[in-house]
Amino acid sequence: MPLQDHMKLVSVDDHLIEPPHVWQHYLPERFRARGPKVVEATAKADSLSAVGKSAAATFSARGIEAGDQIWVYEDRPYPNIGLNAVVGKPKEKWNGDPMRFDDMRRGCWDPVERIKDMDTDGVWGSLCFPNFPRFAGTLFLTDSEDKQLALACVRAYNDFVIDEWCATAPDRLIPLAILPLWDVALMVEELTRVAAKGARAVALPENPVPLGLPSYHRSHWEPVFAAAQHHDLVLAMHFGTSGVLPSPHDDGPPLMWLALLGVNAMQCAVDLLLSPVFNKHPRLRVALSEGGIGWMPYILERTDHMWSNHKHYQDIDQDNAPSELFRRHMFGCFIEDEAGVALRHSIGVDQIMWECDYPHSDTTWPNSRANVAQQMKGVPDDEVHRIVELNARRVFNL
Amino acid sequence: MPLQDHMKLVSVDDHLIEPPHVWQHYLPERFRARGPKVVEATAKADSLSAVGKSAAATFSARGIEAGDQIWVYEDRPYPNIGLNAVVGKPKEKWNGDPMRFDDMRRGCWDPVERIKDMDTDGVWGSLCFPNFPRFAGTLFLTDSEDKQLALACVRAYNDFVIDEWCATAPDRLIPLAILPLWDVALMVEELTRVAAKGARAVALPENPVPLGLPSYHRSHWEPVFAAAQHHDLVLAMHFGTSGVLPSPHDDGPPLMWLALLGVNAMQCAVDLLLSPVFNKHPRLRVALSEGGIGWMPYILERTDHMWSNHKHYQDIDQDNAPSELFRRHMFGCFIEDEAGVALRHSIGVDQIMWECDYPHSDTTWPNSRANVAQQMKGVPDDEVHRIVELNARRVFNL
Repeated sequence: MPLQDHMKLVSVDDHLIEPPHVWQHYLPERFRARGPKVVEATAKADSLSAVGKSAAATFSARGIEAGDQIWVYEDRPYPNIGLNAVVGKPKEKWNGDPMRFDDMRRGCWDPVERIKDMDTDGVWGSLCFPNFPRFAGTLFLTDSEDKQLALACVRAYNDFVIDEWCATAPDRLIPLAILPLWDVALMVEELTRVAAKGARAVALPENPVPLGLPSYHRSHWEPVFAAAQHHDLVLAMHFGTSGVLPSPHDDGPPLMWLALLGVNAMQCAVDLLLSPVFNKHPRLRVALSEGGIGWMPYILERTDHMWSNHKHYQDIDQDNAPSELFRRHMFGCFIEDEAGVALRHSIGVDQIMWECDYPHSDTTWPNSRANVAQQMKGVPDDEVHRIVELNARRVFNL
Repeated sequence: MPLQDHMKLVSVDDHLIEPPHVWQHYLPERFRARGPKVVEATAKADSLSAVGKSAAATFSARGIEAGDQIWVYEDRPYPNIGLNAVVGKPKEKWNGDPMRFDDMRRGCWDPVERIKDMDTDGVWGSLCFPNFPRFAGTLFLTDSEDKQLALACVRAYNDFVIDEWCATAPDRLIPLAILPLWDVALMVEELTRVAAKGARAVALPENPVPLGLPSYHRSHWEPVFAAAQHHDLVLAMHFGTSGVLPSPHDDGPPLMWLALLGVNAMQCAVDLLLSPVFNKHPRLRVALSEGGIGWMPYILERTDHMWSNHKHYQDIDQDNAPSELFRRHMFGCFIEDEAGVALRHSIGVDQIMWECDYPHSDTTWPNSRANVAQQMKGVPDDEVHRIVELNARRVFNL
């Protein structure tokens, strides 16, 4: 029995769809009028925001039409993209069209129902990323006109996720916070605030440069990393949060970037491993959320090899091999990954955590335990236990 | 004994440094004055070509100075980048500075000496990519002002590589030709010409879009693919030939893109597998030269999974899983790749070929046999034989 009954599944990557009240309830009253709210679209929205347009175009979706429920934030419309909440629907009905809340399984946005869905699935713990603010809260960085409002929106999301969503089952739901990415002092302040409220992780983009921010090689980020280390919060870098799609060009089907999204996680890993970050913050921990693990043995081997061959003429750590830094600081997260499970010892069994990805299209719900058992065929019990539960408990201090 | 004495190593990716006479000898006389020639730099070249500048900047090299030997083509100077010919030098002396021919090991540019170096290394066969024209001959596409001259340069290179380089040891040196990439009719004509002269492969860029050409999803390329299939020539797509570096940003050490170059091969594989190319050309074969293999199980698994989940709403082959197409059409090529050798059955043992990469920095020369023996520990004899020799003989019709 590769997955025994006493092993509890802890998923380190799920997603919540914010219910309509989040910002209208948690924002200070003066910000509510221009804060995110859900409205019924009364007509085709010809002037989709750039984000809405690119999301719709990416999935060849139809755009907003009358009858859709959409988010409006500072007067800009944003569709709820159907592919972000497919759980429980047959594949043949998936598409990128905008949708209504009552089209979704209730567990997408209701934490009481989510817990029931987790019970159905035999999943004990869950860490959720946001949806409307994007997985690292970058919408409040890139789209907001009023940064006072944006800061209030970040705090409101964090209050919702800690005080309401996770408070529904505090021993099972793991709070992940977002940060006001445009200001380092505010990031440190919010990180400190959410740490005191019980957050276990904060989301940061996999690569800040495409978002107009300095790279992680710059001292700009030092106070944030120092605060995360001090408060023992994991940095969760979810693939796709740079906003860059890894397709080699725009002339093929969207399947190309879906298939290649792990490339973003590879770039994130190599970026951090070849930066000064881990030398300066020796206890910092980074989770490569949804990044997959099957590529890790190859990338670590290649990066070590290149480091060994080319470090002599480059401004780079001459002493610590990238793979050593990886094993001290980074964690791979996977949903289904036969290659990664087969090569788990090349990655480090203690560096690997399992994900369910509810309610996205990759989710194993409602068959997670059967799926994990199948994937773990031939893996010794103690290793299975570490991968599905114990590593997550250690990394997130559960 | 994982590598037995009777097994001959065939390297499907080496590089030749063109000797100074190539174009001055093989070009028709009227083109020679403006064709590529080697000159002694008499002063610091302040006006490096864009290419020279980017290569120099990439490696933090010093640029051209008096005393260097450089190529001049249509009045533009191009340095010989030292990192392209490091074979036989200690790592501590590697750098990107321009160099002279007498700084290089003679086997870089002299085929008689190359054969001796192969004998020293216990390597039987070798397929060489060009250097000055770049690995897929893209310099004649992107840099040439006079396309008549450029076409003559492509033909001159192919005549040199077939009639002189490979003619030195026709049973051991495998001719790879380049094509006039800017014109489909000319490509087909040159492909047909070199096939008749004995070429076994033609180089194409891993991704034509960044070079200003249509993507491989377009019918533009059909006549070229049809001709390659008809003449049974392998398409060799060497990583890096799109000219795009896979770094997530430009704010880190060059080691980042060196570590990540396999990403280009991943993109190339996914691009072709999700295009109509292999459906239209059922016997076409593509080698992902120097792309590595350790990532293949992960990427094939992920691409199949995404295809299975998302094909229903996309304009894509609904019947053939990407991994099936891969096993009919694509070949992975590796120098050192522990992860790939461990997972060789997930890739397909018959899809894997070995490379020596002489005279580049990744080369295993002069210890290739010991290196291969070490990598193949625990691999059954017949599989080793296929990977190091028999697959190359089959794929390249040796």
